[in-house]
Amino acid sequence: MDERYWENRRTIRRYEPQEVPQQLLEDLILKASHAPTTGNMQLYSVIISKDAEARRVLAPFHFNQPQVENAPVVLTFCADFNRMSKWCEARNAEPCYDNMQSFVAAMIDTIAFAQQFNTLAELAGLGCCWLGTTTYNARQIAEALKLPKLVVPVITLTVGWPADGGVEVGRLPLEAIVHNGEYSDYTPERIDRLYAEKESREDSKRFVEENGKQTLAQVFTDVRYPRANNEHFSQVFAGFLADAGFMKGQS
Amino acid sequence: MDERYWENRRTIRRYEPQEVPQQLLEDLILKASHAPTTGNMQLYSVIISKDAEARRVLAPFHFNQPQVENAPVVLTFCADFNRMSKWCEARNAEPCYDNMQSFVAAMIDTIAFAQQFNTLAELAGLGCCWLGTTTYNARQIAEALKLPKLVVPVITLTVGWPADGGVEVGRLPLEAIVHNGEYSDYTPERIDRLYAEKESREDSKRFVEENGKQTLAQVFTDVRYPRANNEHFSQVFAGFLADAGFMKGQS
Repeated sequence: MDERYWENRRTIRRYEPQEVPQQLLEDLILKASHAPTTGNMQLYSVIISKDAEARRVLAPFHFNQPQVENAPVVLTFCADFNRMSKWCEARNAEPCYDNMQSFVAAMIDTIAFAQQFNTLAELAGLGCCWLGTTTYNARQIAEALKLPKLVVPVITLTVGWPADGGVEVGRLPLEAIVHNGEYSDYTPERIDRLYAEKESREDSKRFVEENGKQTLAQVFTDVRYPRANNEHFSQVFAGFLADAGFMKGQS
Repeated sequence: MDERYWENRRTIRRYEPQEVPQQLLEDLILKASHAPTTGNMQLYSVIISKDAEARRVLAPFHFNQPQVENAPVVLTFCADFNRMSKWCEARNAEPCYDNMQSFVAAMIDTIAFAQQFNTLAELAGLGCCWLGTTTYNARQIAEALKLPKLVVPVITLTVGWPADGGVEVGRLPLEAIVHNGEYSDYTPERIDRLYAEKESREDSKRFVEENGKQTLAQVFTDVRYPRANNEHFSQVFAGFLADAGFMKGQS
């Protein structure tokens, strides 16, 4: 393995037209299922969408990001307490997972599994793009994939053979994310230092200019993740979680 | 790299007394920070607890699982919108992350980062145990680690040099977790087939017997994750999320 893989990994949004063999996909999924899981319950399912029409249906729910239609494989990773509950019902046990803490446990399992798949796929030479917008239109995705209650899509990966090397985006320095012993809050001076490299990048400057903003942070608050969207999709997601059966006792 | 690592990986709960060098820990954390992240916001922090007294304080919040006191390193991975908000405030941008969708985005980032760390640590020869109980006592953990608002602990890893090889626990067959095209719900016959190997294991039979239950599923519903606990900790977590500033507009 190339030791530099870890720090050089890139999101891949453009793919070659070749298919990903089902056997390879299943081999990677099975290996990924050995990621840590709460109580060994494996509280997830993954839906494989390869058919072009199926991907065309999903595309608008991911705000028409082109990789959903262009990737040969779309994987929707779902927090799943349905299978566990069906098992309980078949074994004279009363399932009790219709609550928020259970959803959180399932979500943790699902993301760890998806991330392990992502790593395994990249090490096999595939490219992936992680679609964090999955929870925005979870209800529509659930309908398209015929998800039953207690199954909630939480992350989507597009997967295929890379058509380019992706884009280097950089990360914050270690000091930004590590705290020794206890949380050390950020002063304005420390913020300046931690974000200096990010703000000085050419792509960051271009973002600011293209969006007619004064600062890179304004691109995030005013354009990419504005308050009205965040609040709207929070309401929508909470409503869907309730309908999916995960909010019992939450007023 | 040993190709068999992925399917043979084990949770490690017993550790040798040797320390984990800070340089190694930081190298692994920096590499893990290249895991996928929504909008490259890196919505997480990790708190390193090495001091024995600090780990002793954390232990009861993890229900006194002995590895918290016995591991040389405890890492608390936190969903963190505080740093991003401080950056916005310092850059004439109004932060707008006091809502559920933002918490979900931060949680996804955090788990992917933690899972990538877990893999890197294991590949470096370390052993880890993933403590899924972190969200149960998130408030107490947050107080102990002096977490400000918009910072929520979501997963904890104990880390150290393995004192044993861990325990093989097995996973469900591929068919249990994969759906092609759309979700294929589970019939009782399919449940029988998918859980047959798990239920026939010696450790499963011992669990059932030791807990005086009729089925393995009952050990989960009646002993390990009973309804009263799930509902209690759901209320507690929702209350903490509200106090942490992530539930604006959620009634």
